[in-house]
Amino acid sequence: MSDSRRQPLRNVLFIMCDQLRWDHLSCYGHPVVQTPAIDELARRGVRFDRAYVQSPVCVPSRMSFYTGRYVGSHGTTWNHVPFPAAEITLGDHLARAGRDAILAGKTHVIPDTASLERLGLPRDASEARRRLDGGFGELDRYDGHAPPGSESGYADYLRAHGYDSADPWSEFVVGASDGGGGKANGWLLRHAHLPARVREEHSETAYMTDRALAYMQAQGDKPWVLHLSYIKPHWPLVAPAPYHAMYRDADTGRIVRADPRTENAHPVLQAYRRAHEDCMSYGREEVVRHVRPTYMGLVKQVDDHLRRVLDYLDRSGRADDTLIIFTSDHGDHLGDHGLGEKELFYEQAVRVPMIIVDPRANAAATRGSASDAFVESVDIVPTILEALGLEPAPHVVEGHSLMPLLHGTGACGWRDAVFSELDYSFRSARLHLGRAVDECGAWMVRTDRWKYVHWQGLRPQLFDLQSDPDELVDLGDAPGFDAVRAGMKERLFEWLLRRKTRTTVDHATVVRRTEDWRGNGLFIGVW
Amino acid sequence: MSDSRRQPLRNVLFIMCDQLRWDHLSCYGHPVVQTPAIDELARRGVRFDRAYVQSPVCVPSRMSFYTGRYVGSHGTTWNHVPFPAAEITLGDHLARAGRDAILAGKTHVIPDTASLERLGLPRDASEARRRLDGGFGELDRYDGHAPPGSESGYADYLRAHGYDSADPWSEFVVGASDGGGGKANGWLLRHAHLPARVREEHSETAYMTDRALAYMQAQGDKPWVLHLSYIKPHWPLVAPAPYHAMYRDADTGRIVRADPRTENAHPVLQAYRRAHEDCMSYGREEVVRHVRPTYMGLVKQVDDHLRRVLDYLDRSGRADDTLIIFTSDHGDHLGDHGLGEKELFYEQAVRVPMIIVDPRANAAATRGSASDAFVESVDIVPTILEALGLEPAPHVVEGHSLMPLLHGTGACGWRDAVFSELDYSFRSARLHLGRAVDECGAWMVRTDRWKYVHWQGLRPQLFDLQSDPDELVDLGDAPGFDAVRAGMKERLFEWLLRRKTRTTVDHATVVRRTEDWRGNGLFIGVW
Repeated sequence: MSDSRRQPLRNVLFIMCDQLRWDHLSCYGHPVVQTPAIDELARRGVRFDRAYVQSPVCVPSRMSFYTGRYVGSHGTTWNHVPFPAAEITLGDHLARAGRDAILAGKTHVIPDTASLERLGLPRDASEARRRLDGGFGELDRYDGHAPPGSESGYADYLRAHGYDSADPWSEFVVGASDGGGGKANGWLLRHAHLPARVREEHSETAYMTDRALAYMQAQGDKPWVLHLSYIKPHWPLVAPAPYHAMYRDADTGRIVRADPRTENAHPVLQAYRRAHEDCMSYGREEVVRHVRPTYMGLVKQVDDHLRRVLDYLDRSGRADDTLIIFTSDHGDHLGDHGLGEKELFYEQAVRVPMIIVDPRANAAATRGSASDAFVESVDIVPTILEALGLEPAPHVVEGHSLMPLLHGTGACGWRDAVFSELDYSFRSARLHLGRAVDECGAWMVRTDRWKYVHWQGLRPQLFDLQSDPDELVDLGDAPGFDAVRAGMKERLFEWLLRRKTRTTVDHATVVRRTEDWRGNGLFIGVW
Repeated sequence: MSDSRRQPLRNVLFIMCDQLRWDHLSCYGHPVVQTPAIDELARRGVRFDRAYVQSPVCVPSRMSFYTGRYVGSHGTTWNHVPFPAAEITLGDHLARAGRDAILAGKTHVIPDTASLERLGLPRDASEARRRLDGGFGELDRYDGHAPPGSESGYADYLRAHGYDSADPWSEFVVGASDGGGGKANGWLLRHAHLPARVREEHSETAYMTDRALAYMQAQGDKPWVLHLSYIKPHWPLVAPAPYHAMYRDADTGRIVRADPRTENAHPVLQAYRRAHEDCMSYGREEVVRHVRPTYMGLVKQVDDHLRRVLDYLDRSGRADDTLIIFTSDHGDHLGDHGLGEKELFYEQAVRVPMIIVDPRANAAATRGSASDAFVESVDIVPTILEALGLEPAPHVVEGHSLMPLLHGTGACGWRDAVFSELDYSFRSARLHLGRAVDECGAWMVRTDRWKYVHWQGLRPQLFDLQSDPDELVDLGDAPGFDAVRAGMKERLFEWLLRRKTRTTVDHATVVRRTEDWRGNGLFIGVW
């Protein structure tokens, strides 16, 4: 039993941004956006430089974060797909130990009401309520891409602070001010340079930080596990002043574009570019240059509020007994590769920032270091369980605790590939390609050198990240790479066979019940 | 829309035997055991000569029959594994149409009480009750390998008929009569020649037939879907008189054994033979010769009771509006290959009898014919749904309706391979091989010519069924077969990718919600 098991931490602060690109933080090398609070986390912990999400799409990625299971295992393959009611979440694992996982912010859980109805579970039952929230106990659930619903107190908060409207979110938070006292539609990218009509201290990021701080304070010495889940820098791309203008004249960086003559663009990539409005918009450089400053401002704003959180943890002593995780549910292409948004498996979308601070002495050796170990979002649940000294559940959880990496005790034998999945059946690309709704799966395998994507019914993609780190030349059908493709496919095959489908019985029970016939009064095949 | 959809059948009688080998019926060519009632079904319908179960083990196979899903999809990988509470069963599909699937006999559902508790569902709630029964409404649940529990009325029935005992099942039904007025332990194979202490008309097979007949009679003209699920010829191998002695002096057939010099026995096969008591017993010819007559008698007994069922259907007119399915959950090695029981993928275990009678005129062309189409147990749910004119659920159900084969309208494009799975982690073979509990998966692919088994962490098996129909020479590591093995593995890979994991949203919803952002007030990436 490791040291970390003997001296568990008391609290966990699991911070998530939405759509935050790994390279838009100064500790990850961004030349313009300075993020000193997040950099401070990196100094106190380990910065993982090769952290990947299980799907570069909000809902499937988050459900992997919350279950420790790959997308094909939890079954929530895209944003409109209900999260199966019987999936076992972080909250369920904590509940076994009498603890709670508390939510402040976004989960994007699509409730599986059909299953609850089939099971005869009243929707107002507390257990059903918890199912609908993905296993979290709710402090304030706020998904942030529609006016706050019944869960969040944000709408009332806004009204109490003078934003007089039936829908103060649409009216003020994502409503842009046109400078002449009028209102512009904040949903439109062309208005990204305008300030939000809400004051910064009443913005979503400020509000949710307030809620989290109030919760931690109220807990006092009682242990807690808090998921502080910001919706920013996710769209709508409207920032409150002064963040809307902070980077307006700054360098917004290179736009990564392949040479069309050598790119060998995959059919799905072409379909995204041709059929999706976000890609058509972000395909234009002026749009990208107009939008990136707002995105950068929103990142900066999150960092400023995380400074408040850090200050509180330091002041209260909580920094000494709290595991801090900082990450994002996926990145954003931001115009790179002629794409907006996420979904495809370019590094911009599938790779995320991940910083973990373990304040214990055991982690001293790795403090402030960077790790290039392959880390996946499924590793978060087992890491939290081990940090709290709770039993793992390896019959369900598919990730691995990062404690050996945090404590510098065991990168040996660590995984040498990461996996990610996509289901694009809800996207126009499917129609563009004329495919059926159950023929739109994709699976990515990334090793140190190669990135391979298997597309159902279409040719694969292959990138040589050594000679082509920007993923500009698709070798998916290039001659001379048969062995590479076969090897990557073999990895995918072996990974598929290891999916944990036997989730209703734990390993100890399997051991205990191995060949236990006679103990149950059965005499099978006995002469 | 096919004719069968326009004129649905009213009733379904889904008859299952337990551990009935496909070749132990006269219509499948058995030279000794005459099964005229089952043969009559074959004359009225289609006899499928290449029907396979999704696992040659009771529980996983049955859960595939009851869900229309492969084992890796429903997750119930072996007999001790609870059936996930949220899996959608035949009963659930019928419930959508206001109908019920009624159970008389065995389901072997291991209830997923942990999930129900986690979901806060009271176990006495009717929906929970139905979960515990695998989605069936219960006429009489009786699993038949332990004294009847609270569900079945069999124990009370026995007591009411003079079998005075706290446990009349152990005492009389599987208690053997030693001929001198004493009692012998019916669990022991050495006693297989002795008659049961219960009279034939009170035996399990008779009782459950009575229950089914009473139910059908009580329904009168009301439609019904009944699962008549016999536990025989499954162990304990005790038959009531006269069946115990009917084949005592008959030809019990060839025992299929490989030449050890050419067999190239796979490590798991060796482990089964060395570590499992049933295999050690059945490895001895005298045991096989002693046991097979009892097994044959139990098959004959089932047939005699099915004659009663057929007579009722004919008399009542129900034969004209009822789809009849006759099959088994798996076979029995009965000493072939040095094995008892089932589990490994030899034809004796993984292939089952399957006869389907569709009384409608559309099926006239195939009446009395045999089909060599590859059929799987996952096909039963979609076949029943189509027979009743109910909507299929292709986002969940992985099998295909057999109606095109029954109506002679479409064997074209039918599957050319079948798949089956095994998890041997609960068996001594795992300990014998020194493997972890999550390293014991196996996947079979069978095509017209080849049978390939992929074993986790071990070499594969390969049999050439053309030159070696008895599966006596394992080519799993034979030189010269690399391309065959690679091709079979490729089939397995493609099959794995097609598993239906997105079960909480139906195909129509995916179509309806494709790119529906704006309809939901979202303007993503719009300039």
